[in-house]
Amino acid sequence: LHRQAVVEAESRQQQLTKPVGALGDLERLAIRLAGMQGKPCPQAERVAIAVFAADHGVAAEGVSAYPQAVTAQMIANFANGGAAISVAARALDARLRVYNLGTVTELAPLPGVESCVIAPQSGNLACEPAMTPAQLARAMAVGRQAVIQASADQPLDLFIGGEMGIGNTTSATALAAALLEQPAVTLAGPGTGLDSAGILHKVAVIERALALHQPRVEQPLELLRCLGGFEIAALCGAYLHCGQQGVPVLVDGFICTVAAMIACRLQPQLSDWLIFSHCSAEPGYAQLLDNLPSWPLLDLGLRLGEGSGAAVAVPLIRMACTLHAQMATFDEAAVSGATA
Amino acid sequence: LHRQAVVEAESRQQQLTKPVGALGDLERLAIRLAGMQGKPCPQAERVAIAVFAADHGVAAEGVSAYPQAVTAQMIANFANGGAAISVAARALDARLRVYNLGTVTELAPLPGVESCVIAPQSGNLACEPAMTPAQLARAMAVGRQAVIQASADQPLDLFIGGEMGIGNTTSATALAAALLEQPAVTLAGPGTGLDSAGILHKVAVIERALALHQPRVEQPLELLRCLGGFEIAALCGAYLHCGQQGVPVLVDGFICTVAAMIACRLQPQLSDWLIFSHCSAEPGYAQLLDNLPSWPLLDLGLRLGEGSGAAVAVPLIRMACTLHAQMATFDEAAVSGATA
Repeated sequence: LHRQAVVEAESRQQQLTKPVGALGDLERLAIRLAGMQGKPCPQAERVAIAVFAADHGVAAEGVSAYPQAVTAQMIANFANGGAAISVAARALDARLRVYNLGTVTELAPLPGVESCVIAPQSGNLACEPAMTPAQLARAMAVGRQAVIQASADQPLDLFIGGEMGIGNTTSATALAAALLEQPAVTLAGPGTGLDSAGILHKVAVIERALALHQPRVEQPLELLRCLGGFEIAALCGAYLHCGQQGVPVLVDGFICTVAAMIACRLQPQLSDWLIFSHCSAEPGYAQLLDNLPSWPLLDLGLRLGEGSGAAVAVPLIRMACTLHAQMATFDEAAVSGATA
Repeated sequence: LHRQAVVEAESRQQQLTKPVGALGDLERLAIRLAGMQGKPCPQAERVAIAVFAADHGVAAEGVSAYPQAVTAQMIANFANGGAAISVAARALDARLRVYNLGTVTELAPLPGVESCVIAPQSGNLACEPAMTPAQLARAMAVGRQAVIQASADQPLDLFIGGEMGIGNTTSATALAAALLEQPAVTLAGPGTGLDSAGILHKVAVIERALALHQPRVEQPLELLRCLGGFEIAALCGAYLHCGQQGVPVLVDGFICTVAAMIACRLQPQLSDWLIFSHCSAEPGYAQLLDNLPSWPLLDLGLRLGEGSGAAVAVPLIRMACTLHAQMATFDEAAVSGATA
């Protein structure tokens, strides 16, 4: 982080024609982003969105309200511009790339979709590790490569990762349970729409996985390998590379936040580069909150994934930057300061 | 409200390629706005912002951290494009008009500022009614006229009212205390930046006003006349006209919400037309929350006024409309629905 830019941005906020602090989180956002970007007036115009998609072996346990074919179908929907993240990316003029890390239904080449297939699906984490060490490394490399590719298009003001994968809240919840050392029942939720019996079944599946792998929080990479999925590993790899390259990250909801927490275990300084976009409606998110380095911007009951909640927060960050850059100072506007 | 548009918008939300409800408040927003605008795919492109500014006699009691001259100085800042609401209006491509209802420092004509001066300031509500009946009527008419003027420019998707007036959180807090029948001490806050001694003094001033006027919640207009201010009355008039004309209103923070609550006492059906934009950081807002017909969209610790918090929420509403209109349906995208 650039200390001097933070100092200059803070000083600028003190001089703008408003009571100090009156723009609340928008002031803090502009100042944080100034530190990340190394300039007193940061911006959030050049945004890249990478959506990582993959199927999960654990879907065989019946842990999702949707059939597994939906992962591939949604990749096509991303490509055709009909998914929430496609619509949001257009509205934001953000570059969207989709990374297919492996689906049970094979996909023909699609525009805007990079084929990085590792396997048709990850291993069923209730019975075996989700990934081999080689698969984990490949998945993380896809994430890293996505950031490199996005940065090659244009210097990035903000990176957004998204995910799609039927069964992936089961994987993320297992990871969260291991990371927070909490029982699965305090974290598991409906995902795309399980009823309460479905949630109890999901809890049992996660408990089997935790009992099988005995994950240790001190071994985040091993934890990710056993309980994760290709797209969650790719998100980890992408976030780690953003931290190394100094690219600000806007983190989406439950699954992305779990990926970010694992990445922070691997590289604690990464947390300086993370902006949390929204509180997911997935119940487990409430348990994550206390462990986040900063508070999410929005709380709109979103639980879609794809990076959609992060995309929704982009206009807010742009507004924070625009206000910070364009408001007049007390001197410029000849407005009197506080008398107290 | 247009019931048929609501039904069609709800039905559309059920068909979009996402789990039902996964876009949370954004879904509800699009559906509500469909009902207000009478079309299944609403929009929030054409936004008008009217900022009402006026000085308050109660400023003589020393209830603000800023000198009274700041009201007029800020009107000039609005006109010159340096204030938060000026910057936000530009960023949103929204039409901003400022209505000067009277300032202690006289103002020369300014571009974008309508001179509607009623008096240099309202009466000091701690000693006398803030307005005469004639002044109250004139101030409310300015608000009504502002909506007519904005609607004449273009058909409005959304109306935003804002306010500026040194001392006006004292007035709004007195109104809130009377409306909620709560003691001033549970509602009063720092406004633009009082310290705790300043807040206690403000409480005492408000208590004097309440003891003097003995406001009755069944007489909202009389309450507004005794404890309000020109700009708060103008907001009431504007909101009432929006309700009558079927123009959706995006309500700003503490002061605007108090004005909206008074307007709803006068015309209960108005509440159907109100979208609350954000939870103000002014402590009294927490007391208003339980009395609002719907929950505010944002909670960013904003406490600037001017309509700025409402402006910050506009991109979110636009995103809700864009997602609602442009996402593919399950049929269009050939995506499988839920199996459960």
